[in-house]
Amino acid sequence: MAALPTGIPFGPDDAAWSTGLDRLRTAGATRVSAPSADPRETYPQLPELPPGRFQLPARGLDATEYAQAEDLFRRYVEDHSSRSLGYQLHWSEDFARRLAPYLGLQLNNIGDPYQHGAFMPNSKVLERAVLDYFASLWNAKWPHRAGDPESYWGYVLTMGASEGNIQALWNARECLSGKPLAGQPRLPADTAHENPNARHPVVFFSRETHYSLTKAVNLLGLDTFHALGSSRYPDANPLGPGTEWPTEVPCVGGVDGPGAIDVEKLSLLVRFFVRRGHPVFVNLNYGSTFKGAFDDVPEAARAVHEICAEYGMAERTFPSDREGTGARPRPGYWIHVDAALGAAYVPYLRMARAAGLVESAPPPFDFRLPQVHSLTVSAHKWMGAPWPCGVFMTRNGLRMPPPRSSEYIGGTDTTLSGSRNGFSALLMWDYLAHHSYDDLARQAAECDRLARLAHERLLKLQSGLGVDLLVSRSPWSLAVRFRRPDEAILRRYSLAYETLLVDGVERPYAHLYVVPHVTEGLIDALLRDLGQPGAFAGGAAA
Amino acid sequence: MAALPTGIPFGPDDAAWSTGLDRLRTAGATRVSAPSADPRETYPQLPELPPGRFQLPARGLDATEYAQAEDLFRRYVEDHSSRSLGYQLHWSEDFARRLAPYLGLQLNNIGDPYQHGAFMPNSKVLERAVLDYFASLWNAKWPHRAGDPESYWGYVLTMGASEGNIQALWNARECLSGKPLAGQPRLPADTAHENPNARHPVVFFSRETHYSLTKAVNLLGLDTFHALGSSRYPDANPLGPGTEWPTEVPCVGGVDGPGAIDVEKLSLLVRFFVRRGHPVFVNLNYGSTFKGAFDDVPEAARAVHEICAEYGMAERTFPSDREGTGARPRPGYWIHVDAALGAAYVPYLRMARAAGLVESAPPPFDFRLPQVHSLTVSAHKWMGAPWPCGVFMTRNGLRMPPPRSSEYIGGTDTTLSGSRNGFSALLMWDYLAHHSYDDLARQAAECDRLARLAHERLLKLQSGLGVDLLVSRSPWSLAVRFRRPDEAILRRYSLAYETLLVDGVERPYAHLYVVPHVTEGLIDALLRDLGQPGAFAGGAAA
Repeated sequence: MAALPTGIPFGPDDAAWSTGLDRLRTAGATRVSAPSADPRETYPQLPELPPGRFQLPARGLDATEYAQAEDLFRRYVEDHSSRSLGYQLHWSEDFARRLAPYLGLQLNNIGDPYQHGAFMPNSKVLERAVLDYFASLWNAKWPHRAGDPESYWGYVLTMGASEGNIQALWNARECLSGKPLAGQPRLPADTAHENPNARHPVVFFSRETHYSLTKAVNLLGLDTFHALGSSRYPDANPLGPGTEWPTEVPCVGGVDGPGAIDVEKLSLLVRFFVRRGHPVFVNLNYGSTFKGAFDDVPEAARAVHEICAEYGMAERTFPSDREGTGARPRPGYWIHVDAALGAAYVPYLRMARAAGLVESAPPPFDFRLPQVHSLTVSAHKWMGAPWPCGVFMTRNGLRMPPPRSSEYIGGTDTTLSGSRNGFSALLMWDYLAHHSYDDLARQAAECDRLARLAHERLLKLQSGLGVDLLVSRSPWSLAVRFRRPDEAILRRYSLAYETLLVDGVERPYAHLYVVPHVTEGLIDALLRDLGQPGAFAGGAAA
Repeated sequence: MAALPTGIPFGPDDAAWSTGLDRLRTAGATRVSAPSADPRETYPQLPELPPGRFQLPARGLDATEYAQAEDLFRRYVEDHSSRSLGYQLHWSEDFARRLAPYLGLQLNNIGDPYQHGAFMPNSKVLERAVLDYFASLWNAKWPHRAGDPESYWGYVLTMGASEGNIQALWNARECLSGKPLAGQPRLPADTAHENPNARHPVVFFSRETHYSLTKAVNLLGLDTFHALGSSRYPDANPLGPGTEWPTEVPCVGGVDGPGAIDVEKLSLLVRFFVRRGHPVFVNLNYGSTFKGAFDDVPEAARAVHEICAEYGMAERTFPSDREGTGARPRPGYWIHVDAALGAAYVPYLRMARAAGLVESAPPPFDFRLPQVHSLTVSAHKWMGAPWPCGVFMTRNGLRMPPPRSSEYIGGTDTTLSGSRNGFSALLMWDYLAHHSYDDLARQAAECDRLARLAHERLLKLQSGLGVDLLVSRSPWSLAVRFRRPDEAILRRYSLAYETLLVDGVERPYAHLYVVPHVTEGLIDALLRDLGQPGAFAGGAAA
C-alpha cells in the first residue's frame, strides 16, 4: 500500500485520491470512504487498459480525459471483437446506425407483454411481433390468447437464456409440486391420499448442460437426482448398483463423446424416481455450451413421457385442477429445451436442407413435440444483440400465477425480471425485420460450411504437425474443438476452454465457434498461429 | 376470425399470412405454424401504433416498410418520453451521441467482475471503476479484496434493482440457514444441539415494499412472517393477539401515512420470531416505489440488532465457520436496503445540504451502519440509463460460494445473471465520468425544489377547485401524490396509480415523480390539464 490511503494516486491525472474531493464545493462536509489500498494494485490488469485511466474521481473526468479513456476502451473492444472466435457471440454493426437514437430514451416493458401497462414508453408492440415470429418458427399455437391453454405464452428476457432457464425451472417447480396454475383457485392441498413424493420434483440434466442450470437449481431449492439419490438411496444408483451416483446424466460416448444426452441412461435414472412417485424435470440441450451438441429431443421426450405414462404420472390432477370448467390435468414431468443457440439457428438450417443448401440438420426440438413444455433462446448468440437477451416460451395452460398483481405497473408481474429491457425487444425486432427466412437459411448454410472447413483444416494441421491436436466436431455443431493453445493465442481470439478428464487423463480442449461474423480469413489466421512453433507449449500436458 | 387462418392479413402490406411464406425459396418445405386467430384482434392496441405495421412476415420488411414502422415507433416513444411524469425513470440524450458505436459490438461481462474471464470484449475495467465509485459513495471499505472480509463485493446488475433484491435474499438465505459462506469448507450440518428454528429464516418487509420482493420470496422458497405466523401461530399475532397476522409490516401513520416502516411494530414482529430462535431477513426501503418514502434505516437496523443480541442471535457460528484461521461468526439477521432510487440520489442531496443548497435530507442508509449487509440501486432511475440496470453490493465476508466454478467463462459464476450486460456498466461509467459530486448535488437540490413546487401548486389547485385532491408528499420524497385523474391524463403523462383502502374507503391515488428530465413547464402542463372540467370525472369514487 503506497503512503497514506488518501494519498493513493487515483484517476487519469494520478492525483492523490483526497485532492479529487477537496476541490469540490459540495463535498467538503460529505462523508464518503477513502480507498484502503490502491485499486490499481488490487485488480487484474490488461496492458491495453491501464485502470487509472478509467477511475472515476469525485470531480468526474474532463473532456480530454474522457475522450482518451473512451477511445482506448473502444479500440480495445473493436480489436478483440474483430478477432473473437471462441464464443457463440456475434455482432452486427447495423444496430449502431439504425438504433442510436433510442440510447437517449428509455424503453421499459414492465410486467406482462400482453398487457398495456401504465408506463407508455415501452416496446411491447415490437415484443409481441417478435414473440409471434418465434411462436410460428417453433410451431407453437399463436397468437397468445389468455383464455386458450393450448396457445403459447412467452416474453423477451432481460438476461440471456440463463433467465429463461430460471423461469422454466421456477414454473416447472410450481407445476410439478401441485401449486395452483394461473387462473386456478388456491385450494388447501389434501395430501393424505397422495404418494409421499407426489409434490417432490427431481431435476435431470446432462454434463454438457450450461452452468447456469446448477445455479437455478440452488436458487429454487430443488433436488437433483444426484442429491436425492445420494442422500436417500446411496447404494441404489441404477447405472451401477453400489457405485456413486453421477452428478449429471451421462452423454453418448462418455465424457469425450460428441455431447448428446444418453437417452438410455436418462431413462434408467428417470424410471428410478418416477416409480417412487416423483415428478421429474428434464433439461435438454439444443446446441450445448462447449461442444455445440444437439440432444435428440424427440427420442428423449418420448422416453420420459412413456415412463411417466407407465406409472400414471404422464397426466395427473390436483385439487385446484378440478374446479371451474372441469378437470384440467397437468403433466407429471416437465421437459425444458435450453436452445440458447439452436432455437435461432437450426430452424434456418432445416430450411436450408429443404432448399438443398445443406445435406442434413438436427431433429426437431420445438412445440410440435407435445412433450416439450418450455424453451429458451439467446439473442446475443445467433442474432448478434450487443448484450445478453433472448426469449422464453411455454404453453399458456401450464403457467404459474403471477406472484402478485400490481396496479402500479398497470398489469400483472408475470416475469422474473419485472422491469424489462425494452431495447432488447427493439433489437430483435430490428434484426428480424432485416432478415428473411431465405437470408437466414443461406447464413446458416454458410456457417455450417465454415465449421466443416475449420474442422477439415484443423485435421490437416494435426496430420501436418504429427501431434494429436484433439480435433473434433460434434454432428451439426458450429463449435470445433482442439487442443488448448498457449495463453497468448487464447486471448488473441477470445477462445473458450475446458479440461475433460478422460479415463483419469486430462484433455485440455479449446474451441472455436462459427457465428455469422466469422470469416474464412479469420479461421485461417488462427490456423497460421496454431501452426507456429510453441503454439501449444503453454497448454497443459496431454 | 377472418376467413381461413392462413388467409389472415399479416404485416404492413396486409397480405394473407400464407403468401408471405410462399414467396420464399427456402421455406416451401419448412414447417412453421400458421396463426390460429388474427393477432391484431387479440392483443391490446394503441391508435398510434397499429400492430400490423410492426408484424414480422417470413420475408422480413422491405426498406420502406421498415422506415415507416421505425419512424412511427420512434415518434411514439419520443412523444411519450417528453411528457413522462409518473415514474422514477429518467433519460439523457447524450448516451446516443457518445455510445452509439457500441451497439455494433458486444459487451458481455461473464462471471465475476474482479476476474478477467476468457471473453475479452467485456467492460469489467469500467465496471470495477463504477463499483469502486459507489463503494466510496456508500462508505464501504474499498477496493474489493478477495481475502478481506471487511471489504465490499458487488456487481453491475443486468436486470434492475429486482435482481439486486433477489441476489440479496438468495445470499441471505444461504447465510441465515447455516450454509457455508465463500471460501469455507462444506461440513456436515450437526443440528442435534441447535434450536429447531436456527436454520429457518423469516422475511420481513413493509407494505410500501416493491412488488419484486414478494416474487423473490416465492422464487427462493422462503417464509414471510405472515406465512409462518398464520400457519404456526395463528392466534399469537403480537400486534393484536387473536387478530389476523398482517401480510406486511405496517408503516408509520397506517396505510395512508407517509410510508416509512413502523420500527416499533417491526420490533414486536421481529422479537416474536427471534425469541423462538429464527434468524431474520429485514428489507428496508430508501425511496419506496409509490410514495418515495425513506425508512429510518439507522433506527430500524439498531432495533433489529438489539433484539437479536438479546437472544444471542446477533452473531453465531456454524460448523463451517470454525475451520481455517479460526471462528468467523456470522450475523443471525440480514438487513437489506432496497435503495433503487435513494442510493443514487440521497448521497448527493446530503452533499447539497452540507453546501447549504437544501435544508434537510434523510438519515444515512449505507455501509457506515454496521448492521446493513447489502444494498441495491437502479441506474435507470436517477441516472437515466435507457434500460433497467443497477448495482448490488454486499460485505465480502458474508458472500455465499458461487454455485459452481466454470473454466469455460474463465472465472467463477458469482452472480445471478451470469452472462452480464456489459453495456450497462459502460453507461454508468459514462454518466459518472460526466458528472461531478457538485453537479449531482445541484441536480438533487433542483429536483427537491421542483417536488416542493409541484406539491405547493397541487395544494393551490386543490383549494382553488374546492375538492379534496388527496395531495400529499412524504418527507424528502420526489413523488407527489394526488387524486387519480381520468384515463386520458394518466396516459398522456404516463402516471402511475395505486388505490389505497383507508378505513374501508378506497382512495384512488396517482403520483408524479420529479427526476432530472422533469421541468417546471411539464409540471405546469399537467396542472393545467388537472384544472380542466372533467379531469377527475373518470377516477374512482372518493
